[in-house]
Formats: sequence, C-alpha cells, structure tokens
Amino acid sequence: MQIDDLLRQVAFIKEIDKLKYIQRKTRLFNSDRHENDAEHSWHLAMMAIVLASHSDKPIDVLKVVKMVLIHDIVEIDAGDTFIYDSTKNHTNTEEELLAAKRIFGLLPAAQAEEFVAIWEEFEEGVTDDAKFAKAMDRFEPLLQNTSNNGGTWAEFNVPYQQVYNKKKAIKEGSSAIWDYAEKLINESVDKGILIKPED
Amino acid sequence: MQIDDLLRQVAFIKEIDKLKYIQRKTRLFNSDRHENDAEHSWHLAMMAIVLASHSDKPIDVLKVVKMVLIHDIVEIDAGDTFIYDSTKNHTNTEEELLAAKRIFGLLPAAQAEEFVAIWEEFEEGVTDDAKFAKAMDRFEPLLQNTSNNGGTWAEFNVPYQQVYNKKKAIKEGSSAIWDYAEKLINESVDKGILIKPED
Repeated sequence: MQIDDLLRQVAFIKEIDKLKYIQRKTRLFNSDRHENDAEHSWHLAMMAIVLASHSDKPIDVLKVVKMVLIHDIVEIDAGDTFIYDSTKNHTNTEEELLAAKRIFGLLPAAQAEEFVAIWEEFEEGVTDDAKFAKAMDRFEPLLQNTSNNGGTWAEFNVPYQQVYNKKKAIKEGSSAIWDYAEKLINESVDKGILIKPED
Repeated sequence: MQIDDLLRQVAFIKEIDKLKYIQRKTRLFNSDRHENDAEHSWHLAMMAIVLASHSDKPIDVLKVVKMVLIHDIVEIDAGDTFIYDSTKNHTNTEEELLAAKRIFGLLPAAQAEEFVAIWEEFEEGVTDDAKFAKAMDRFEPLLQNTSNNGGTWAEFNVPYQQVYNKKKAIKEGSSAIWDYAEKLINESVDKGILIKPED
C-alpha cells in the first residue's frame, strides 16, 4: 500500500514538472525574460513566509504556502490566462476544474481530495488563508511591473483603474501591504508607467 | 516599524529573484533545458509536502518546506557547485556563509536570524527535518536523471558507486523512498545509463 502510494506520488511529481514550461505574461525583475509558473509559485511561497506577519487575520502559514505552491498547477492543462484578459474569465473555469481533477487525481485518493480542496479554497478566495494567498499572487506582479518600467501594464495598455481594481484584493489579506501597494500604483501614474486616462 | 520591516522584506523579495538565473547541471524531465534553482526549490517543496508521510521520523512539514525553499539562495552569490565536483566541496563553504549573511541579512533582524539558522540546520543535516529535506534534494535529480537517459551521470561520466554514495543520504530521511531509489539506481545500471566499472 505504501509502495503503491509512492508510485502514484512519483507519477504526480513527474507530471508537475510541466509547470516549468508555462510562461506567464510578466517578466523577471529588470529583465526581458518571461517568468514561468514554477518560478512564480516558488516566489509566492517565499513571500507568504516572509510577509505572514502582515496578515490582518491569523493564518495557517503551511496552508497558505500549499495554496500558492499548487495554485497554478491546473494551467498545465488549461494554460495561463492573462489577468487583464476581458474575453476569458481568469478563475474557476470548467477547464481548470477538469485539470485539477486529472492532475491531483494522479495522487493517492485522500491526498488528491486534499489538494483539490486546497485549490478550490484558493480559487473561492473566501477564507483568511485564501485571501492572504491571493494577496501574494497580486503583489508579486505589482513589484515586477514597477521594476520593469510598467511591464505588462505598458505592454498591453492596461489602464490605472483596471490595475487598481485587481490589486485591491491585496487589502483583503493585509492592510499594511495594501497601503504600500497603493502607493506604488500611484507613483507609477506619476512616473508615467501606468496610464490614468481621466487625468 | 512595520513599514520599515516591509521595506526590508520587499528588498529581500526582489533580491531573491536572482535565483531564477542560477542554472543547475540537471535538466527538466524529458528535456534538454537546464533546471534553475527557483524551479528546483519549488519542486522540492512540492515533494516534501506530497511525500511527508514517508518520513521515518515525525517532521515539521512547514520547517522542511522552508528549508528546501531557501536552501539554494546562497548560490545567488556563491554559484551552483555540482554535487559530483571533486575539487570543490559542495557544502558549507566560507563563501556560502557570507552569502547567507548578506542575502538573509536584507530581512528584519529577527527574521534574518531565523533564516540563517534554518539554512544552517539544513546544511548540517543532523535533525530529522534536515535529513528529510536533504532526502528530497537527492531524490529529485535521481528522478530527473533516470527520466533523461542518464542525464548528468552520462554527461559527466559519474560512476555507479559515486551516485550510490551520494544518494544513500535518502535513507536517512525515509527508508521507503530509499528502497525505491535504490531500485531505480540498480535498474539504471541494467539499462546501461549508469556505469558500474566493476561489472
């Protein structure tokens, strides 16, 4: 039984290697190279650990780390959807649920169930753990874009209000990080790397 | 104070982006592309979570995950040393300690101390948490090399005994994973992708 479990786990470990091939729209800090989902997930896990004390509510750090480590695994089947894409909804598509069931389903049954549940909790974004995990997921590309002369905002002409609305999710996890993030967004407008059409 | 901490943490978060540029000798599964340290660290964290129940001793999974997420950050300054390099010791060089102090030192003092301590615990490999973390670090390239037609063993002519000696560290963390790993090593000799000179 333990051997059978191990074989299933190894199959899963090999399968998720494919996350390293999924390119995001955002780029590495001060670089032209796109970030891939595995690098992104590692960075979010580091951020969750380093920034945990800024959470407004008590959180289970291990749970949050699991969430950010696995949150993009469904993209192995479903692909990366750009957060500012207006034609395709970013979250909870039928395609992503099928992907979660297939990929986490490689694991032993109890573990597969646990991983699907953690992924769903992240996607729903209702619990304090999920809110903090999502705050990390919004904060990393904000740091990248402000380091990259506007990054994807400039590349895809994303206006201020759209950025602001998406980033506001950071506030749900941490008011301290949001205060800092809001300042970065406003400074980006002043610097001309984020366009505020009303101005 | 909280703001000052956050600024230091953001400086650290930006600095560790450089881990994504450190190339390892091993390659992705079924691929010619080298793996980088950030991808590797993400994969080990996933493995630690998925395989935790195979540890022979009780472990603190969050601690183990922290260890594997940060274990290679010193390579931002010290570079990657190939595990089968006979001229340069892989672990605990003066250079790596300086790197740990500089990079983790970007964090607020208490957090910097915690991270240096976790990194040292991993490097020393004495505690049950460190043994399991090290088992993960040995197991991933074994899976990669057996999937890559010998991978770095073939590329650098690493003989069976040297591989066996390095991989035996897996046994310190998990006898179940070691049983499986040993089988993989022996099968690799049978397949001719790992050379056993005495045969």
